[in-house]
Amino acid sequence: MIAAAEQAADAAGAVIRPYFRAGLAADLKGDQTPVTLADREAEQAMRAVLSRHFPEHGILGEEFGLDRPEARLRWVLDPIDGTRAFITGRPIFGTLIGLLDGDTPILGIIDQPVTGERWIGAAGRPTAFRGPFGGRIGCRPCAALFEAELSCTSADMFSPADRPRWQRLSAAARRVSFGGDCYAYGLLALGQIDAIAEADLKIWDWAALAPVIAGAGGSLTDWQGRPLRPDGDGRALALGDKALLAEAIALLA
Amino acid sequence: MIAAAEQAADAAGAVIRPYFRAGLAADLKGDQTPVTLADREAEQAMRAVLSRHFPEHGILGEEFGLDRPEARLRWVLDPIDGTRAFITGRPIFGTLIGLLDGDTPILGIIDQPVTGERWIGAAGRPTAFRGPFGGRIGCRPCAALFEAELSCTSADMFSPADRPRWQRLSAAARRVSFGGDCYAYGLLALGQIDAIAEADLKIWDWAALAPVIAGAGGSLTDWQGRPLRPDGDGRALALGDKALLAEAIALLA
Repeated sequence: MIAAAEQAADAAGAVIRPYFRAGLAADLKGDQTPVTLADREAEQAMRAVLSRHFPEHGILGEEFGLDRPEARLRWVLDPIDGTRAFITGRPIFGTLIGLLDGDTPILGIIDQPVTGERWIGAAGRPTAFRGPFGGRIGCRPCAALFEAELSCTSADMFSPADRPRWQRLSAAARRVSFGGDCYAYGLLALGQIDAIAEADLKIWDWAALAPVIAGAGGSLTDWQGRPLRPDGDGRALALGDKALLAEAIALLA
Repeated sequence: MIAAAEQAADAAGAVIRPYFRAGLAADLKGDQTPVTLADREAEQAMRAVLSRHFPEHGILGEEFGLDRPEARLRWVLDPIDGTRAFITGRPIFGTLIGLLDGDTPILGIIDQPVTGERWIGAAGRPTAFRGPFGGRIGCRPCAALFEAELSCTSADMFSPADRPRWQRLSAAARRVSFGGDCYAYGLLALGQIDAIAEADLKIWDWAALAPVIAGAGGSLTDWQGRPLRPDGDGRALALGDKALLAEAIALLA
């Protein structure tokens, strides 16, 4: 299954790369933008690989919905996680491939098709990482939020009700950085970031992240510290050191 | 001078790359962190190259101050623009090398030593760009802010007085993305971003950007539309299409 997931990531990357930084026109036309075309064609390429290997598995993708909803094993695909990064030419978006057993993620790939970085997480194994820029798998120790690098794709993702909760957390952290989408979770697995809090995540945004983070020694939960679930509220808290959990959920309460 | 500036960028990159994603410990100790060491050693490496080529020129760097203040030609160096990106392992910080003739920037390099991307701007010439991820030099047309991709490293950079000004601008834009420091200005020169508004920039943050943007057809001014100056207020507005200038400065007023 890992090999098939890697093949799917390769296929998505081959579709996505030519669209990256390809258009000079502002991204306005909806259906025919480079990001929309790359998103759809990459999802189709991944579906083709996975359904050839595993015709009995379900496949859920952001663009084309759910095939075989009755299957216990379901692939969850997000061809371009980080639309804004892709559109603006920042090479820190990612392709996400997750595999759920029932409601539990058991396999996850974060692939950056432009830089050539790939994180591979599988239940019960240490996460693997390959890429040309260095970095070693392993979340780092961080005992208290005042020492923590906190990250978030954009503070604009928080609802008016959630914004004060985010602000309490960010005020307690050593430093806050923005941007990165799934790439930031990969950096948490490399011990470069200590905490990430986000909201409004869909299942295809987080299913692949959970095994990557677990296999690097970190945790990925909701804002109450519970494992993420398909029927959850979309709020996510990733921590490199579980010692931060009590402090973080108190501030996010 | 361009060749010497490129040699200085090469020297800085050779210093910086081994420090990128090198440390597993949280970045706490001030003097001995990877980013502090990389910053200092890279500035020394650039100073050595430039003073060997041009012993009569001034050199101003963030870490080691100003040599030969009486010189008309002064190099302005920022070894790591984008400290947070560097610390968190995002490959979108940059090394900045600018050359001022009096108070006017006449040469600028934005170098990303990890990805291998380099922008070279020189007065009176089209900007040059090299890198493995694609992209072509040339700001794109964008006639109105409601069509514009707006960017900013972090909304936290704005003072309480400036925040409503930023909020008016960002509410008028099509979309806002965060992160990137100098790299975002490079993306504006590639036609991927239409507008950037920032505050609190020092001379070493913007001197190298001005020739890169001018040579790609864009503009870099303060929030009143005046060229940036060493004695300015640190507020910057970069536009890919000068047609946006009147609308942007009205919103930032």
